[in-house]
Amino acid sequence: MTTDNTTPPRTMTWVGGTDGYLRLIDQTKLPVEFVELECRTVEEVWQAIKQLSVRGAPAIGVAAAYGTVIGLQSAVNATPEEFDARRREVTEYLASSRPTAVNLFWALNRLNRLAETLADLTPAQQLERLLEEAREIEEEDREMCAAIGRHGADLLADGTGVLTHCNAGGLATAGDGTALSVIFAAAAQGKTLQVYADETRPLLQGARLTTWELQQRGVPATLICDSMAGWAMKEGRISAVITGADRIAANGDAANKIGTYSVALLAKAHGIPFYVAAPSSTFDLELATGADIPIEQRAPEEVTHGFGKQTAPDGIGVYNPAFDVTPAELIEAIVTERGLIRPVTAEQVAATLAAGASA
Amino acid sequence: MTTDNTTPPRTMTWVGGTDGYLRLIDQTKLPVEFVELECRTVEEVWQAIKQLSVRGAPAIGVAAAYGTVIGLQSAVNATPEEFDARRREVTEYLASSRPTAVNLFWALNRLNRLAETLADLTPAQQLERLLEEAREIEEEDREMCAAIGRHGADLLADGTGVLTHCNAGGLATAGDGTALSVIFAAAAQGKTLQVYADETRPLLQGARLTTWELQQRGVPATLICDSMAGWAMKEGRISAVITGADRIAANGDAANKIGTYSVALLAKAHGIPFYVAAPSSTFDLELATGADIPIEQRAPEEVTHGFGKQTAPDGIGVYNPAFDVTPAELIEAIVTERGLIRPVTAEQVAATLAAGASA
Repeated sequence: MTTDNTTPPRTMTWVGGTDGYLRLIDQTKLPVEFVELECRTVEEVWQAIKQLSVRGAPAIGVAAAYGTVIGLQSAVNATPEEFDARRREVTEYLASSRPTAVNLFWALNRLNRLAETLADLTPAQQLERLLEEAREIEEEDREMCAAIGRHGADLLADGTGVLTHCNAGGLATAGDGTALSVIFAAAAQGKTLQVYADETRPLLQGARLTTWELQQRGVPATLICDSMAGWAMKEGRISAVITGADRIAANGDAANKIGTYSVALLAKAHGIPFYVAAPSSTFDLELATGADIPIEQRAPEEVTHGFGKQTAPDGIGVYNPAFDVTPAELIEAIVTERGLIRPVTAEQVAATLAAGASA
Repeated sequence: MTTDNTTPPRTMTWVGGTDGYLRLIDQTKLPVEFVELECRTVEEVWQAIKQLSVRGAPAIGVAAAYGTVIGLQSAVNATPEEFDARRREVTEYLASSRPTAVNLFWALNRLNRLAETLADLTPAQQLERLLEEAREIEEEDREMCAAIGRHGADLLADGTGVLTHCNAGGLATAGDGTALSVIFAAAAQGKTLQVYADETRPLLQGARLTTWELQQRGVPATLICDSMAGWAMKEGRISAVITGADRIAANGDAANKIGTYSVALLAKAHGIPFYVAAPSSTFDLELATGADIPIEQRAPEEVTHGFGKQTAPDGIGVYNPAFDVTPAELIEAIVTERGLIRPVTAEQVAATLAAGASA
């Protein structure tokens, strides 16, 4: 387990050529154990996605792309028709691993669309091109993360205490993440930061994953319970907040992990800027405002049996929304790979997204 | 296990006369099991306090008073000198069970002071008087809780969604508690309330104890994670907040379980009144403001190893304050057994406390 600032462990790595395999961090074992899985069959990739060994929308897309390549290795000497049939079988199978993961379908469709243009190549040549495309998907994701870091790094001053909520880190992407990419980029500029990570009940992504990533990268990190964020602000420990987002409406209202809205309000009460970091693909411009974003309710057991032990009485009512929506007026700026959206208004959202990937 | 609204299980009950014993709910087994301990030796009472089977300042005081009686039962036929020596031994021993519990010393001192006025009585007569005094301490605590309920009930309107944080319930007292006494009193007026209980990380008193008490009393209760309070307010589910307090300064600044300050700020942002319920004994008029209240830092393991499972990486920094301080200007009213303090100012605090126990 490395703690070298320059070579943090990669969420996933393709090892070898078209006959290679996918190595990925088993995130279900973090933070107690660092274990890497080597996926050499499409079933192993499916299982890794299914059981959340790899999670986070961008990371799932990249894993599924490489999984398609793995699934086609056995058909490399088959007829073109057999290769095509196998490709359809493999991508349908991988799509069934996390039926709600948009990036999963997006990546698989991208490979299928490409393959349909390759009919005059041999299966071996097609496989070569599909591997190139999977590498391209991974590389685009890394570049997106890096661009977010570049655009956001100046928001965090030297000596800043920075609060983050949930995990918007490299573990959810092939690169440095979104909110954490901004933190890593600021740290790479030589700034000293003290990062406070909300543990993020009920699923504790902050405690389990964010603190681990920060520790791996040598960024000073302090874990707090979600209920402590307000008091840490009051005590002057925090001078900026940055989180990711799951979905952003046309006016800049941002849905993110439950608790983000509270953090944004608390930041406002203390005069602390609240930033969101998210790729342009997070924006859903068909939604005028955050009021149109549906809020998923999750199982009560996440709250009542969260820590391996029952912590509430049988039969108690539970309210367990997965997300909340932070209104645009509480957001000082949104950091995208296409630049900063500031102020956060429908006009600025449209203008920045239209600017294209010029970063 | 009763769920009868009229006879909820009592935190503790003295059974019998001077040769009786103390029965109390083993709160370490809640909410999964309802088990009552029967303490028939002073060692058993000491152990019950030590291992948090009974917790909460008022409840500890009452348990220690009865524990003194139990410890003296074996000396009832001894000489007055031997009885005196045993009393000093027993009260010193009980005082060592929770060295930071103010009510523990207060109750033991009260029995010792009384005993010193009883020199011309036989040990059996003295024991009778000490049992009466223990009953009196218990009864005063019940009356305090009931008076807080009476003074606060009108603050909660029919149909109100009420948020509470931590456990300010009957389990911490011999009666109905403080914040929960207000809720129980409003429910007893026939009002329909929906109570939201913050789970209250790190020790989950809300999840483990508050929900259990509400369930026992038949008050509709919903458990939420601390991070969900702001969103529940935004959605219009909550129209009042009431919590207990651990220590209140002369100007009304109130220290309470970590997270209370955030809840008060979130309530203010949504225009929701925030109330504190606490007996007059909670006020420390020697402290001008909350800035003088020391904040205890607790062990990192409460956050990283909360409930039988490691949820954060080895060696991660943790910030774990036990309390925070809610400034008086965020508190709409403080409910005491002597009446309402509203507005919460130094003048009103002084006036209400001076009014005496006229309720």
